Amino acid sequence: MTFNKILLVNIKETDLDKKYWDKIDSVSKKKVFLPKDSPQIIQELKDTDCLLVGFAIPVTKEHIDSAPNLKYIGTLAVAYHKIDIQYAKKKGIPVTNIAGYCTESVAEFIITAILNEIRQLDEGKERSRNKNYDFVGMSASEIKGKVFGIFGLGNIGTRTAELAQGFGADVRYWNRTRKKDYEAKGIKYEDKSVLLKNADFISINFAHTPETDKFLDEDAFSKIKSGAIVVNTVPMETTDLVALENRLKKNDMIFILDHSDEMKQEELNILHKYKNCIIYPPIAFISKEARVNKQNLFVENIENFLKGKPTNVVN
Amino acid sequence: MTFNKILLVNIKETDLDKKYWDKIDSVSKKKVFLPKDSPQIIQELKDTDCLLVGFAIPVTKEHIDSAPNLKYIGTLAVAYHKIDIQYAKKKGIPVTNIAGYCTESVAEFIITAILNEIRQLDEGKERSRNKNYDFVGMSASEIKGKVFGIFGLGNIGTRTAELAQGFGADVRYWNRTRKKDYEAKGIKYEDKSVLLKNADFISINFAHTPETDKFLDEDAFSKIKSGAIVVNTVPMETTDLVALENRLKKNDMIFILDHSDEMKQEELNILHKYKNCIIYPPIAFISKEARVNKQNLFVENIENFLKGKPTNVVN
Repeated sequence: MTFNKILLVNIKETDLDKKYWDKIDSVSKKKVFLPKDSPQIIQELKDTDCLLVGFAIPVTKEHIDSAPNLKYIGTLAVAYHKIDIQYAKKKGIPVTNIAGYCTESVAEFIITAILNEIRQLDEGKERSRNKNYDFVGMSASEIKGKVFGIFGLGNIGTRTAELAQGFGADVRYWNRTRKKDYEAKGIKYEDKSVLLKNADFISINFAHTPETDKFLDEDAFSKIKSGAIVVNTVPMETTDLVALENRLKKNDMIFILDHSDEMKQEELNILHKYKNCIIYPPIAFISKEARVNKQNLFVENIENFLKGKPTNVVN
Repeated sequence: MTFNKILLVNIKETDLDKKYWDKIDSVSKKKVFLPKDSPQIIQELKDTDCLLVGFAIPVTKEHIDSAPNLKYIGTLAVAYHKIDIQYAKKKGIPVTNIAGYCTESVAEFIITAILNEIRQLDEGKERSRNKNYDFVGMSASEIKGKVFGIFGLGNIGTRTAELAQGFGADVRYWNRTRKKDYEAKGIKYEDKSVLLKNADFISINFAHTPETDKFLDEDAFSKIKSGAIVVNTVPMETTDLVALENRLKKNDMIFILDHSDEMKQEELNILHKYKNCIIYPPIAFISKEARVNKQNLFVENIENFLKGKPTNVVN
């Protein structure tokens, strides 16, 4: 089976390497690219049987009803909150995502960002640039033996937990639901407030939802121990920025974030004042390996659907 | 059993915390501190029954013969190449060291130093300082799936191998002798030249000896693959500096070192010209945990000897 027409919304030629486009071309007669919010989308949907959308592109009931031949919706993202997956399901249309494509990239970044601070690499490099080859006055600590708290034990949280266990950390987690299979592997469950108090390192790995909005609030920050390092690789809506600033002022913990591109400059200006707030561009998910996984999963999902064995279906 | 007199050569009051000195005082009537090369050493040895020496302090046949009551020699270091351990053994005197005290500290540093480069953390921090929150133009890669070559599978090499395996690296080693027990754990042996060619990451973890002098020579550097990262946390005598510079000039690999304090400034000035040569002060071994281990091992060795169960005896 092949498609007659693929409509791609907010997916650019540069998003995939040539060999992946070749694979897509081999299963479809026609491809139409449209930008986000294009007025032509409804019109083009009429004879579309495969709809591919970029990150956070809406696919509504209206879109689906405009495409009587639609058989497949694929998104080049993990999130699918803008897609009416229930209505698609009702119409018998599977929606697929590329879950897990950047798991390793983000998990390795979390460990990297923590190690960078506890080993004072910046200070080390600066000393040597200034021809000072003395370690006196520098300090370092290890991940081994420390309490490593994972909040949100999904794909990325779990892989981060495994990496931390490899270092010999005492890994504990908090999650909306208990994960007994991971508890059997020595990852202990603790209540939010207990884990915030106990953890030397904290990694935030749940999605931003109404329930996790401002998860790190005044109360949470008051519980985090002195000397702790918090890494937030999820959207900063999970953190109350006023509460964060109040805790940063005490200069007794480090907060690391990488979703800076989604923040307002005035919010960032405030955080930049604190040396104990480490701000990165969104580089946690960008490994070359993640880019390869992303393209593979996206194209394999299409191919597997056509073979009658759909993968990564979210509805 | 206790000692009558402990002579400490080139060990300072600040090398141990008070609680460790208290333990030492509880097993000895008297302590005498002398600096390295003090002319009083021979005189003081006459009634010494416990000799404690710092890093690379010579203990010769003459010293041992000057101390008819000597029962124990302990060094506050891993290396004991300046101690005549054979002659001490002949006289029935055990020599102890503090092997393994910084294993974890160095192994975590090696992984940290590699991750810092493959995730471009310096560039990330600089962009955000300049209010640039874009990842375009940055690149990142993962340890997972890469060939991680360990040269020298002692304590530190082995722990580094384990950490790399935790990341899902394909860990291979070269060592003077085969280590079948580690091969059973999936760490594959390869010849020096084969491993140099195959490895994405190279960690040098053997001691500097006449056999390992200039181990990384012109021939070795010519084999290392483009894009590789080499971490040398052992003395730089293991590396031919001219060969290193020749390879650095090609700007296709990264060399990381931390034994800068033992190098000549003119050597360092040459290396500083290359951005792909990352120079740290000697910070691999300095974790707080290593300092605790160091003191514990040093004092426990003394206590265990007095209990008739000597530990970490090297002769």
